[in-house]
Amino acid sequence: MRVALIGSGRMGSFHAESLTYRIPGVQLAAVVDPAPGAASRMATAFGASAAYTDPAAVFADPTVDAVVIAAPARFHAELIVAAAQAGKAVFCEKPGALTLADLDRALGAVAEAQVVLQVGFNRRFVPDWAAARRLIDDGTLGTPRLLRSVTRDPGGFDPARVAPDTIFNETLIHDFDTLSFLNPGARAVEVFAVADALVEPSWRDRGLLDTAVVTVRFDNGAVGVAEACFEAAYGYDVRGEVFGAKGMATMGDGRVDGMVFSGSSGRVAATARSDQELLAGAYVEELAVFADVVRGLDPVPVGGQDARAALGIALAAAQSVRLGRPVQLGEVGA
Amino acid sequence: MRVALIGSGRMGSFHAESLTYRIPGVQLAAVVDPAPGAASRMATAFGASAAYTDPAAVFADPTVDAVVIAAPARFHAELIVAAAQAGKAVFCEKPGALTLADLDRALGAVAEAQVVLQVGFNRRFVPDWAAARRLIDDGTLGTPRLLRSVTRDPGGFDPARVAPDTIFNETLIHDFDTLSFLNPGARAVEVFAVADALVEPSWRDRGLLDTAVVTVRFDNGAVGVAEACFEAAYGYDVRGEVFGAKGMATMGDGRVDGMVFSGSSGRVAATARSDQELLAGAYVEELAVFADVVRGLDPVPVGGQDARAALGIALAAAQSVRLGRPVQLGEVGA
Amino acid sequence: MRVALIGSGRMGSFHAESLTYRIPGVQLAAVVDPAPGAASRMATAFGASAAYTDPAAVFADPTVDAVVIAAPARFHAELIVAAAQAGKAVFCEKPGALTLADLDRALGAVAEAQVVLQVGFNRRFVPDWAAARRLIDDGTLGTPRLLRSVTRDPGGFDPARVAPDTIFNETLIHDFDTLSFLNPGARAVEVFAVADALVEPSWRDRGLLDTAVVTVRFDNGAVGVAEACFEAAYGYDVRGEVFGAKGMATMGDGRVDGMVFSGSSGRVAATARSDQELLAGAYVEELAVFADVVRGLDPVPVGGQDARAALGIALAAAQSVRLGRPVQLGEVGA
Amino acid sequence: MRVALIGSGRMGSFHAESLTYRIPGVQLAAVVDPAPGAASRMATAFGASAAYTDPAAVFADPTVDAVVIAAPARFHAELIVAAAQAGKAVFCEKPGALTLADLDRALGAVAEAQVVLQVGFNRRFVPDWAAARRLIDDGTLGTPRLLRSVTRDPGGFDPARVAPDTIFNETLIHDFDTLSFLNPGARAVEVFAVADALVEPSWRDRGLLDTAVVTVRFDNGAVGVAEACFEAAYGYDVRGEVFGAKGMATMGDGRVDGMVFSGSSGRVAATARSDQELLAGAYVEELAVFADVVRGLDPVPVGGQDARAALGIALAAAQSVRLGRPVQLGEVGA
Repeated sequence: MRVALIGSGRMGSFHAESLTYRIPGVQLAAVVDPAPGAASRMATAFGASAAYTDPAAVFADPTVDAVVIAAPARFHAELIVAAAQAGKAVFCEKPGALTLADLDRALGAVAEAQVVLQVGFNRRFVPDWAAARRLIDDGTLGTPRLLRSVTRDPGGFDPARVAPDTIFNETLIHDFDTLSFLNPGARAVEVFAVADALVEPSWRDRGLLDTAVVTVRFDNGAVGVAEACFEAAYGYDVRGEVFGAKGMATMGDGRVDGMVFSGSSGRVAATARSDQELLAGAYVEELAVFADVVRGLDPVPVGGQDARAALGIALAAAQSVRLGRPVQLGEVGA
Repeated sequence: MRVALIGSGRMGSFHAESLTYRIPGVQLAAVVDPAPGAASRMATAFGASAAYTDPAAVFADPTVDAVVIAAPARFHAELIVAAAQAGKAVFCEKPGALTLADLDRALGAVAEAQVVLQVGFNRRFVPDWAAARRLIDDGTLGTPRLLRSVTRDPGGFDPARVAPDTIFNETLIHDFDTLSFLNPGARAVEVFAVADALVEPSWRDRGLLDTAVVTVRFDNGAVGVAEACFEAAYGYDVRGEVFGAKGMATMGDGRVDGMVFSGSSGRVAATARSDQELLAGAYVEELAVFADVVRGLDPVPVGGQDARAALGIALAAAQSVRLGRPVQLGEVGA
Repeated sequence: MRVALIGSGRMGSFHAESLTYRIPGVQLAAVVDPAPGAASRMATAFGASAAYTDPAAVFADPTVDAVVIAAPARFHAELIVAAAQAGKAVFCEKPGALTLADLDRALGAVAEAQVVLQVGFNRRFVPDWAAARRLIDDGTLGTPRLLRSVTRDPGGFDPARVAPDTIFNETLIHDFDTLSFLNPGARAVEVFAVADALVEPSWRDRGLLDTAVVTVRFDNGAVGVAEACFEAAYGYDVRGEVFGAKGMATMGDGRVDGMVFSGSSGRVAATARSDQELLAGAYVEELAVFADVVRGLDPVPVGGQDARAALGIALAAAQSVRLGRPVQLGEVGA
Repeated sequence: MRVALIGSGRMGSFHAESLTYRIPGVQLAAVVDPAPGAASRMATAFGASAAYTDPAAVFADPTVDAVVIAAPARFHAELIVAAAQAGKAVFCEKPGALTLADLDRALGAVAEAQVVLQVGFNRRFVPDWAAARRLIDDGTLGTPRLLRSVTRDPGGFDPARVAPDTIFNETLIHDFDTLSFLNPGARAVEVFAVADALVEPSWRDRGLLDTAVVTVRFDNGAVGVAEACFEAAYGYDVRGEVFGAKGMATMGDGRVDGMVFSGSSGRVAATARSDQELLAGAYVEELAVFADVVRGLDPVPVGGQDARAALGIALAAAQSVRLGRPVQLGEVGA
């Protein structure tokens, strides 16, 4: 299977390495990046045969079976449309799009072309979360009542480059998908969000939102809380909890290994400092599954409707902050 | 020091035992309970010299130095007033009262009589929470940004006997106080609550609220989430988290001991099944500190203004559920 | 019940506090210590009515029901004999004696006088260990195969004051008893010990043994390892493990509370720094049970034969170090 | 790099998969197995170009750069010799040989041919253990005093097929190497072993040893305990501990993921049930490093002298069981 990569940034680099070395039967066919030299540098590094600045080149290449989209979020929808129209299977990083209209256009193209679309909600592939979901599916946990999903980044971001709703569209969107993943069959109906600039209070007046808490009501009565902050002193922190009628699953211990050192300052365990350190396995696994999906071996594990559900919550959360009140999913068109 | 106990129910019994056996220099002087025979049975069991059905008897007894109020919540305010007017030091179970007007009347009587009033927010005396607070006080944790406080009861409640706002006034009030305790110096400004009957859905139409999630905004920007459910399959679950600029403290591991059994079903640790199992130490400690407060050795660790802050959040939460929108603390007179 | 305390050192002080404040129905009747002023200082501090330099005084006092012996180990045997002859119930700190001959003499006196003798093997009263034993008694764990018991002290000892076999007679004797406690019904048959001065290597030539590993074979085939060191950089460390046909129990997490701080140096939990911090509950519990034993409510939970079994292993271990080979229990007369 | 695999059993299969899919730049050139059809089945499954029943074929193939030896232990030495003489780089599963004479012969051939020899002590590549070693190398842990290494297999073995010293030569040899790895620069000087048939007592008379405890003294005074059992009810259990002057590292939490379920039976975490489940990453990592060693990028991480040190302890342990006394390493020629 020949896969082209669109985007050679941080996640693109990781995916390039996975496609090249860690996923049996897959070949990195081409790299696309509009920045001068970026694609060819990466293509050389990983032995890809082609490098382009325009994605049209890979869509036109009949030997390319699939594309992995790791470009900035604002280009996702149009890239999905173009890829689908070219008949390529698509793996797209989250979010699928930044508006429901764009996303629906993309999903329409996918449906019409009958191509595969998988969305990069990687947390579903982290062993802890997958294990929790199994407990729900097999009835061990009982009907979910309360859920929690947390993402805290390790900091070091540039406040000037953070678009206002980034915390909802790009960070918490993982948590919104996680809440749905852990409450299968239920739909979000109402969202209330509180957000602020607590890491960089001096940017508050310029609209920065670096910390947020979002309450999500589902139609089965369950209530989820998603919480994010752009800076945690101890590293990258991704955790979750689902509490149901028969018990609770907690996910995410954040440790890099099982070694514990007991010394003069007490008992110390190392914590993960980056997403690629903590979630490396999940980043590989989602692409490995995608390869199997393209081969027809597996159904799409997380697709367009999942992207739409998460985006709807993200838009409602942003709206809730603007209005200072709970927002119904219907109000944002979701 | 001679202490009279008002109320011989579940918590009253525990306090009777603590006062009799676990707190040096304290004597259980009398037990009061209006139920026929209840006070005398407990007095006999613990060797208290007197038993009454009317609390006026202990207020009139000049040899009684202090009273511990463990009567139903609706009687708290008037008992505090009477005790204060009689010049007794007062330890009162939470909540201090069910309305701010009642509470203010009680606090006024306490202020006028210049007696001690300590409120039974026991979580402040659990070692984990006390340790977290120390990390805040000494600057290790940095300014709080996000907080969480969870209470889940082990179930077995009678839906018919649960007053509508019980989950806020009697359960979550602990969590509301905990949020304030872990965000010292800040004041709650806005509350949004979601609540439902998820344990007993058939009681939903009769107004039962057995599960709730409450978002509390503080005037320093920090956001707290308090969460409760009246039934957890694994027992009594009290946990907390405070995340600040320099790190995060997590509290409450819910285990009854440090023994872990690894067997055919994996690795298993026993969880606490009741509050008195999990928090026994804190229940004793709060009374031990109260005794020292009465002796003039310590300042009141948690008093009338703390009771007022927590009650204000509870009332705003109940109002938020009724109105379906966030409620400012000012709206409920807090 | 009136209890006299013999010995006002570190453990004596702790026991004085427990007897005075934490054990219902018990009264600290007298304190004995040969050091000038020591007994009277402690008697005053805890409100005991009498203080003596000679234990004969308490043995002669008909109002004393029981004695707690917390004197140096070399005096234990003769104090047990005298107490028994005076008809007093006896709680004696470990070891019961320093030789089997002395211990047998003490046990003979106890048997003849038909008094209670309980030995201070406190680890049996730590919740983790008690819980592990329940798993053995109820068949959950299966027949023990491998056991481990660890004691590490927090350091700060004076090498000049450590008698050669202290690590066996006074430290590891707890672990030897623990191994027997967790392998009920079995008897030790062979001991192999390795010991050295690793904390204070410069004292090696003077015979200091500050670190030791002891292998104990039991007659049911199970093998136990007991391990001690006089200095651990992270505090006081007491742990255990018992692995049987159906699973494994691990005991002792060494934490002072359940609070965990995640900060720039990772995830940190505080560790106990002293035995009285880690084992306070067990120290109280063993005396509370002793009080119930004296009242005739409970059988002796750990008595003379347990003391003999542990001492036998300790003597064999010391002999094994001297001979450089495994030693049969029979060789030391056990 | 073209690598031939000798042996297509359980570990051979795992290595075939790693060489094919998980190690960049490596190609599975051939599979060798004397059992009819075994090599060709595996070659077909993994797309290897050749399959042989005689290893001479790969030694004769000039396009083969390296061999991975996963044949039964009794063939290791002669295979190493033949591979070295053919100029192939060698990765050999543990133990390097079953006698020191055989091993020395193999090491001599390696030295003469100046080829790479890496031995399959995988535990050095498990993150926990590697992290512990870093704490030793950077001085954080201080001089090691006490060490522990545990291996418990999940059971299901056939007593009839277990050679008498298997527990030492094939199981505990990992732990013996681990003790040396965590006490760098020190040499074992004395070994005392206790072993028995506790899993299958009815095989005791036929010489089965399924459970063992081995005490190893090192020339720097440190004492290590290695412990193994062929059956643990909770799965595959590999743990370690190294306690030094400045602290303690513990390794191996045995969990398959970080998800914890709290339900009616308490708090439950899943445990690993097999070595390939628990140590998959280390099995891949040791081959990835081997590939880099062959490329000249890395020094041999664990080689012939390490194999010799571990084998010496294993032989001394077996001898100690036969003689019932501690055995000096010199006694077995190590």
